[in-house]
Amino acid sequence: MRYKRTAIIGIGLIGGSFALAAKRAGIVETVVGVARSDETLRAALEVSAADEVTTDSAEAVREADLVYIAVPVGATRGVFEQIRDSLAPGALVTDAGSTKREVMQAAAELLPDHVTFIGGHPMAGSEQSGVRAARADLFEEAVYFLIPTDTTSQEDLDRMQQVVRALGAIPSVQTAHNHDRIAAATSHLPHLVSAALASTVAKLAGDNQEVQSFVGTGFTDTTRLAEGSPEVWRDILMSNADNLGDSVEELIGALQTLTVALREADSAACERLLTEAQQARWRLTNQ
Amino acid sequence: MRYKRTAIIGIGLIGGSFALAAKRAGIVETVVGVARSDETLRAALEVSAADEVTTDSAEAVREADLVYIAVPVGATRGVFEQIRDSLAPGALVTDAGSTKREVMQAAAELLPDHVTFIGGHPMAGSEQSGVRAARADLFEEAVYFLIPTDTTSQEDLDRMQQVVRALGAIPSVQTAHNHDRIAAATSHLPHLVSAALASTVAKLAGDNQEVQSFVGTGFTDTTRLAEGSPEVWRDILMSNADNLGDSVEELIGALQTLTVALREADSAACERLLTEAQQARWRLTNQ
Repeated sequence: MRYKRTAIIGIGLIGGSFALAAKRAGIVETVVGVARSDETLRAALEVSAADEVTTDSAEAVREADLVYIAVPVGATRGVFEQIRDSLAPGALVTDAGSTKREVMQAAAELLPDHVTFIGGHPMAGSEQSGVRAARADLFEEAVYFLIPTDTTSQEDLDRMQQVVRALGAIPSVQTAHNHDRIAAATSHLPHLVSAALASTVAKLAGDNQEVQSFVGTGFTDTTRLAEGSPEVWRDILMSNADNLGDSVEELIGALQTLTVALREADSAACERLLTEAQQARWRLTNQ
Repeated sequence: MRYKRTAIIGIGLIGGSFALAAKRAGIVETVVGVARSDETLRAALEVSAADEVTTDSAEAVREADLVYIAVPVGATRGVFEQIRDSLAPGALVTDAGSTKREVMQAAAELLPDHVTFIGGHPMAGSEQSGVRAARADLFEEAVYFLIPTDTTSQEDLDRMQQVVRALGAIPSVQTAHNHDRIAAATSHLPHLVSAALASTVAKLAGDNQEVQSFVGTGFTDTTRLAEGSPEVWRDILMSNADNLGDSVEELIGALQTLTVALREADSAACERLLTEAQQARWRLTNQ
């Protein structure tokens, strides 16, 4: 397995790390990096994430046998529109978006039959962003979700799994529906909660100058996700709004149950609810 | 400033760290450690957090000129009842509870006039608990809230501030009302949210065996507080239920505002709300 020409559309942290990992594994030859800014393209060349660069996605995919799209989820449809007429027959096309239903739908509508599209979502990231933060080991030991289409052959799915394994990641094949439903609970709900909590505490604090004395690691940990890029997360959350809405309703119910137990000074219920939460977290994070 | 005999009631992580820090600073001579279990008392002696130990709080405070109470908030009233008739005239009595109104009220009702009570709350802790995790440097650079009563003299408040500074901590004088109101937002709300989130994600996951593949650092960070002791946190949250209830209502409002923007696919509103959250967190954690 060796791809002669790989186009990476959106060569930031994820796209750049894919390039470095795939080069290290020896599965790609020439990498063409695409980004909107010259500054990013210069950086991609400097850190050897790309051998050639361009701002033109259509140009980049011409003759590419592997196309890796790593742009904000909401921008993926636009990329498909830009590249659809330039894709080489037989090319393997994949993406790295955090939600999958919209992307799979757009791929089915827009991409030509002579290419293979398989959706992807690596469970990897970093506090940093941008191609200068790219690392060849970013995907090591990470779960990497793969979403085949109705027409994906087993052979093509095997090809894609080989790519993922070459990065050091662990492929997990999912349906888009299942992926987005579970990710709404495990990933998007925590993000929404983190953002809502940060805003709420700031609102409650008002212009009280002493509030910073009260901020400890609890608040810092619980709101860490709110540091994420508003542009990237707007796309992710919007593309999963239906599942997320259901998750938020469940959460509000849990908050209200706890608050009632507290207000009623129901000591046994409070301790039971906190113990259930402790055990729930343990089960979800240890196995 | 030197205390001849210091009673530490509840010699766990906080009580034990106070002992080690105060000894290192040379402000205490003999330390008497109190706990319910012989195992804890043996450990307190082994790590040199105590010179003498007993399970009898009344016995421990007899002749003590400094009394440090570090038990769960809900147990503080019971400790006051146990020690009130044995306290030595002129003793400085303080606690380390995470909420302050209940404790201040109980002290006013129960403690004799011939002692000085000043409430305390060190913003320090550890993922570990118990006296074996105690450290002389636990309070270094930590904010340490002090709550005087209506009758506290400036001289006594100065004595207490000297003790806190000797630990390496930074004293911050507050009213109980102000303390509990701000802590509800910055500390107790994050805890409640963390617990509700862990329970909700577990409920949404049901018996889906694949959910662990989806759990990443986002969920782990956001629910870290849910690991805390249900017994300790039940007390803290219950003793601040009124403020916390108000905070939860604000949070639910913020969650609903975000969810509406997502459901309506209002891209500009989503990005604005996430940007506000990012900026709010930055302001609260950096200054």
